[in-house]
Amino acid sequence: MVVTKGILFINPVGHNTWDTAVKEYLAAAKDDNTEVHVISLKKGPRHLEFHYYEALIGVELLHTIKQAEKQGYDAAVIGCFYDPFLHEAREICESMVVTAPAEASMQLAAMLGDRFSIMVGRRKWIPAMRRNVFKYGYGEKLASFRSLEMGVLEFHEDEKHTEAMLKSEAERAVKDDFAEVVILGCTIQFGFYRELQELIGVPVIDAVLAPFKQAEYLVEVRNKLGWKPSKSGGFETPPVKEIVEWDLERQYGAEGLWTRNNGKNKEV
Amino acid sequence: MVVTKGILFINPVGHNTWDTAVKEYLAAAKDDNTEVHVISLKKGPRHLEFHYYEALIGVELLHTIKQAEKQGYDAAVIGCFYDPFLHEAREICESMVVTAPAEASMQLAAMLGDRFSIMVGRRKWIPAMRRNVFKYGYGEKLASFRSLEMGVLEFHEDEKHTEAMLKSEAERAVKDDFAEVVILGCTIQFGFYRELQELIGVPVIDAVLAPFKQAEYLVEVRNKLGWKPSKSGGFETPPVKEIVEWDLERQYGAEGLWTRNNGKNKEV
Amino acid sequence: MVVTKGILFINPVGHNTWDTAVKEYLAAAKDDNTEVHVISLKKGPRHLEFHYYEALIGVELLHTIKQAEKQGYDAAVIGCFYDPFLHEAREICESMVVTAPAEASMQLAAMLGDRFSIMVGRRKWIPAMRRNVFKYGYGEKLASFRSLEMGVLEFHEDEKHTEAMLKSEAERAVKDDFAEVVILGCTIQFGFYRELQELIGVPVIDAVLAPFKQAEYLVEVRNKLGWKPSKSGGFETPPVKEIVEWDLERQYGAEGLWTRNNGKNKEV
Amino acid sequence: MVVTKGILFINPVGHNTWDTAVKEYLAAAKDDNTEVHVISLKKGPRHLEFHYYEALIGVELLHTIKQAEKQGYDAAVIGCFYDPFLHEAREICESMVVTAPAEASMQLAAMLGDRFSIMVGRRKWIPAMRRNVFKYGYGEKLASFRSLEMGVLEFHEDEKHTEAMLKSEAERAVKDDFAEVVILGCTIQFGFYRELQELIGVPVIDAVLAPFKQAEYLVEVRNKLGWKPSKSGGFETPPVKEIVEWDLERQYGAEGLWTRNNGKNKEV
Amino acid sequence: MVVTKGILFINPVGHNTWDTAVKEYLAAAKDDNTEVHVISLKKGPRHLEFHYYEALIGVELLHTIKQAEKQGYDAAVIGCFYDPFLHEAREICESMVVTAPAEASMQLAAMLGDRFSIMVGRRKWIPAMRRNVFKYGYGEKLASFRSLEMGVLEFHEDEKHTEAMLKSEAERAVKDDFAEVVILGCTIQFGFYRELQELIGVPVIDAVLAPFKQAEYLVEVRNKLGWKPSKSGGFETPPVKEIVEWDLERQYGAEGLWTRNNGKNKEV
Amino acid sequence: MVVTKGILFINPVGHNTWDTAVKEYLAAAKDDNTEVHVISLKKGPRHLEFHYYEALIGVELLHTIKQAEKQGYDAAVIGCFYDPFLHEAREICESMVVTAPAEASMQLAAMLGDRFSIMVGRRKWIPAMRRNVFKYGYGEKLASFRSLEMGVLEFHEDEKHTEAMLKSEAERAVKDDFAEVVILGCTIQFGFYRELQELIGVPVIDAVLAPFKQAEYLVEVRNKLGWKPSKSGGFETPPVKEIVEWDLERQYGAEGLWTRNNGKNKEV
Repeated sequence: MVVTKGILFINPVGHNTWDTAVKEYLAAAKDDNTEVHVISLKKGPRHLEFHYYEALIGVELLHTIKQAEKQGYDAAVIGCFYDPFLHEAREICESMVVTAPAEASMQLAAMLGDRFSIMVGRRKWIPAMRRNVFKYGYGEKLASFRSLEMGVLEFHEDEKHTEAMLKSEAERAVKDDFAEVVILGCTIQFGFYRELQELIGVPVIDAVLAPFKQAEYLVEVRNKLGWKPSKSGGFETPPVKEIVEWDLERQYGAEGLWTRNNGKNKEV
Repeated sequence: MVVTKGILFINPVGHNTWDTAVKEYLAAAKDDNTEVHVISLKKGPRHLEFHYYEALIGVELLHTIKQAEKQGYDAAVIGCFYDPFLHEAREICESMVVTAPAEASMQLAAMLGDRFSIMVGRRKWIPAMRRNVFKYGYGEKLASFRSLEMGVLEFHEDEKHTEAMLKSEAERAVKDDFAEVVILGCTIQFGFYRELQELIGVPVIDAVLAPFKQAEYLVEVRNKLGWKPSKSGGFETPPVKEIVEWDLERQYGAEGLWTRNNGKNKEV
Repeated sequence: MVVTKGILFINPVGHNTWDTAVKEYLAAAKDDNTEVHVISLKKGPRHLEFHYYEALIGVELLHTIKQAEKQGYDAAVIGCFYDPFLHEAREICESMVVTAPAEASMQLAAMLGDRFSIMVGRRKWIPAMRRNVFKYGYGEKLASFRSLEMGVLEFHEDEKHTEAMLKSEAERAVKDDFAEVVILGCTIQFGFYRELQELIGVPVIDAVLAPFKQAEYLVEVRNKLGWKPSKSGGFETPPVKEIVEWDLERQYGAEGLWTRNNGKNKEV
Repeated sequence: MVVTKGILFINPVGHNTWDTAVKEYLAAAKDDNTEVHVISLKKGPRHLEFHYYEALIGVELLHTIKQAEKQGYDAAVIGCFYDPFLHEAREICESMVVTAPAEASMQLAAMLGDRFSIMVGRRKWIPAMRRNVFKYGYGEKLASFRSLEMGVLEFHEDEKHTEAMLKSEAERAVKDDFAEVVILGCTIQFGFYRELQELIGVPVIDAVLAPFKQAEYLVEVRNKLGWKPSKSGGFETPPVKEIVEWDLERQYGAEGLWTRNNGKNKEV
Repeated sequence: MVVTKGILFINPVGHNTWDTAVKEYLAAAKDDNTEVHVISLKKGPRHLEFHYYEALIGVELLHTIKQAEKQGYDAAVIGCFYDPFLHEAREICESMVVTAPAEASMQLAAMLGDRFSIMVGRRKWIPAMRRNVFKYGYGEKLASFRSLEMGVLEFHEDEKHTEAMLKSEAERAVKDDFAEVVILGCTIQFGFYRELQELIGVPVIDAVLAPFKQAEYLVEVRNKLGWKPSKSGGFETPPVKEIVEWDLERQYGAEGLWTRNNGKNKEV
Repeated sequence: MVVTKGILFINPVGHNTWDTAVKEYLAAAKDDNTEVHVISLKKGPRHLEFHYYEALIGVELLHTIKQAEKQGYDAAVIGCFYDPFLHEAREICESMVVTAPAEASMQLAAMLGDRFSIMVGRRKWIPAMRRNVFKYGYGEKLASFRSLEMGVLEFHEDEKHTEAMLKSEAERAVKDDFAEVVILGCTIQFGFYRELQELIGVPVIDAVLAPFKQAEYLVEVRNKLGWKPSKSGGFETPPVKEIVEWDLERQYGAEGLWTRNNGKNKEV
């Protein structure tokens, strides 16, 4: 019997501009048994280049993820290369898989070569992303960050230009920084990886596809082998008792999220 | 001419139980020229032991901090040892000082001895706090975490018991883990440090006072020497233009926060 | 159209005692579209506890892997927790996926909790395995090694005893070392993980299943997205020209391995 | 009641050329309640570019510091960016604060941005200074060293030239090395920071002012909160009994330093 | 009484092209009491640039080393800068010294200056060599790798050209990478170090001589002080009982290697 | 022709109690061609447990070393496990070898096993010694420090007791901390290593013999191969011109040390 895997890809921004394109992108890459949905947030900034913007979307993002688990999704993908609220999401979920681009991309890259370079939009992004590189254990595998000096919203304005810029910086990463793998450090750089990896001859990891395929993989090992985040430490889930007593659901506009029928009725 | 330093200490939880006690605590430790206010949030969880709770209070915390800068405060202190949203706060402020307990305590401890131990309430807290230890550069100076297995809300229920527990674990940290300095890893462990440091004979850093005194110091060097967070990288402030175009103030209940009269009219 | 994934699991020892059991074990865990074969070597030691034994099996292991690629396999799994010759295998393969237990297990563990402990048979194993922990970037995530003081060949002699030992050490790892995830540090500890993870309440990673499921995942991203080891650095493949000129095939009993019809005729 | 803080700034070289200028420099930056004195040594080299020169001044420097504590000073600042004998000074003092430029500057820089660059005079200085960067925990925050290739005694010979050199190297540090904060890696680079930070738009930490303001801060927390170096490990003070028995005072020309009236009679 | 030290230098490749030259090279550098032999393997690749080639020669290399111990040699030197099978060799030997170029060169370099650069033939070599740098503890002392883009077999084709290339890259290492010591990262770069170190004015470590002289040193401390590899952990020797039971000697063409008269009859 | 190597072992304390015993100790371990002298200082403390004591002896120690080079010694050994002034000594010497116990012992230990433990006298010593472990690159190889809680002057008071204490702590290091090598962390623990290493079955490195034998080795490579500390960076020697102009020789009681006939007239 084949079990469908339901995966929700979340563009954690307050507009749905990219939802359809991302959905088609994922559809072409998904496993036959995967069912994929793409959503964005009801409100919020249009990109997350600033950490303030990340902070703004935290509550809706986490509630969306928690809701997805209740609806029966097998996995949620947080669609931003800062991996915002990834640990928090694993804390609040009982067993739904949650993945994010930076962690997924670096794990892959670490198996495909010795060192990787990350293509970012602007230098502003680097400090927070480098902290993640070290947090995930890949400090020694980081060849370089390379910045295109383009904002998130510009990547698809003139795709030929973006492509040329990516090619130029990726080639320098390979030649000057000795990178063996290139990671696209923004989900909105989607659509460029395949041509780029053919041009420059090294694997180019796409920040939309990497966490999506990793989600399929983690759902598989969860379902077959029971491997899901440990609840004995950092991922211990908050007690519903406190959430109720403190009236948090009402305060944060999430009535019933934690308390109503927690059965996994797949309603996707 | 003496200039008063206005410092806002924020208990980032949805109740004001500790505000008065903390205010008196700070009043006894402050510089003559410092004016201190203590507030808590209008809504939210009663403690931040879970990262979900942290995420919940992010927006109000950051808006409170941004508002404080507009009101003319010289510094804000984030009163939780996870240092929640510290980088975000430095990003959104133009020049107001923002400090937090873990960073301030570890910097002090690093000068007072070779290695330090951190007294936490529950083991659940350790993973996130250890990541901060490494993020701040103090991985090599960490002797141990020691857990009392008490929740935040229990520290002041039976203070004799808490005191005994702290003494017992701190002594083991010094004897078995070779700690030379002890850090109290929760702001709500306030009130215990002085007696404890006399009992065990090594410095005991208090998580309320450390970031508060550091705030006075950073205001001093900002005012006299112009040293404030660099805006050329990770702390670059989001552009008001985007915030306006995307209607973020209204969406997140912060009308006028970024756009109205940004002059620093001290209204504390 | 569904494409079958052919995966070869290699027990890199000179006896086939475990082949059938491992094959059944994998069959129960495999994806529907996966076809799995399990083999061992024609000669060699009966376990690899000593690095000398590893060195002995290197040539046959690598030739088996290279042959598997020629036969059309999609992936090979090296069935020993020392990950012997993993880098070498990725070097000689054109595009076949190669995985190994330690790398696969640690990548999973790093997502499932903050720190992991590894259950080894004997203390002798620890130095080489710890070097791998650091090589893969997980030094900071290592809670401890715990040794059962049992040789590889003893794990299935008295399974009740092994189970009790594993339970006892795993519980100490969780309680004393703050491990959130337990990794079984030997493929021949297969068969114990599921009961153990129920008993102790944290994920227990099995060293046979982890690299096998990771192989399925890596084949999937290779086939769909073209991500395979970079050939621009450490994984550059030796030139067939040299191999021919130096008569290496004949010298090492691998006639035709590099030179004969290199087309991928699936003959599994 | 206002308590005056007495701080002694020591130029650890055998000439008083810079004492007056440094004193005026500090006077303009000091807190109202601080009383500052600047001295240099009675003998010794004119700069400390070589470690041999540092070793030469060790005894007089430490005795000057010990004497300062007896005279009632609250803090001593060691005025050289190698931080010579900082740990030794904390060892011999009972409770007087001792600070030094590198430690103080890096702690500040770590809060003001992601990474910092250090402007040195000559490449010769770098190895020892880099060891300090790592010792203090800031290896990951070091963007680069930039060398002006000027000796200590040349910085104030042609100040326009020095200024131009500093500007040029600091700008490259920001642009090419992604530094967000610049540290002047020599106390004798005093006088340049303010104009430089206006020119290049990032904080520029001055090596005279940073340890001086930090000293005021550490005196404050010592006096108010009792936080002073731990005597339970690396900073344990040598026993006077040994010093007397071994006749060390006489041997090293410091009669009475350890033995005479150890009361803190403020004689500043 | 003078005891002769017998040292066997092994060129771990399948041709004896360099044996005579290396022997003369060593003869000129050896201690009076040292007796040196140089051999190569009976079969195998002509260089070890690829890890596959390393794997091929493992068994013969280790058996040669084990045989050397039985013959009474005091030390064996593995003549390849990848240090292939160094740990394995120390595992199988009872007390014979085994050294290798990378470890020996880096230990020397770490005492001769702050940072070193390694001259490699091709970029392909760097990932594995960098892993060794970290494994040996010298990550922080690595200034750079510099690649000549020449294969092993080309170094002595046009020695003037090689010399010029080495000089050019070594000078850049000193000037641009701040290297204070240069290491020649291939044994087949022998013959160039002395002229090079005179030309560029910093020590240049030769990869043939460094492990050879270190071998003399380690034999000396072994003989005089009893210091030889610990057998209580990673270097525990495999039990002969297993080797016999499993018929490994016959399987790997090493009849009698482990079992026949293990007395140290010096037959060199 | 045999060239004698002259080595000066310096007990850097103000008494000659141990000189004869150490001389005999070295005589039994030295190479035939080595001529060894042992001296102590003319004044100073009787041990160096405190960093203040180290600072006191710096000038005489360095001048003794510089004088030794002028007298024609080939090497000087600094006889204290803190390795005091080792870098300074390499800076001031033109080409004489200088070694010290911690560096020499750890380099040896790193080749003899995976991890080592260091036996110290008192916990006070640990912070500075651990900083050295990291400075030398061996942080990952440190299994533990074990403290006997005995002062330097007590080691030879009751040798049976010391022996028993060493045995007990060394055994725990091997059993509980997984140390494979034991280092005696004080030169005055001389005389115990051989019996201890027989008792506990792992190599025990002696802090007097290790730097002495390393000195012989480094003299050998210096004489034969020209490898001596690089003068292009951290070990650049101070210019005699400055020393003369500043009258440093007279100020520090070292008339003629730098200026008089610098020829190497061997007068040992």
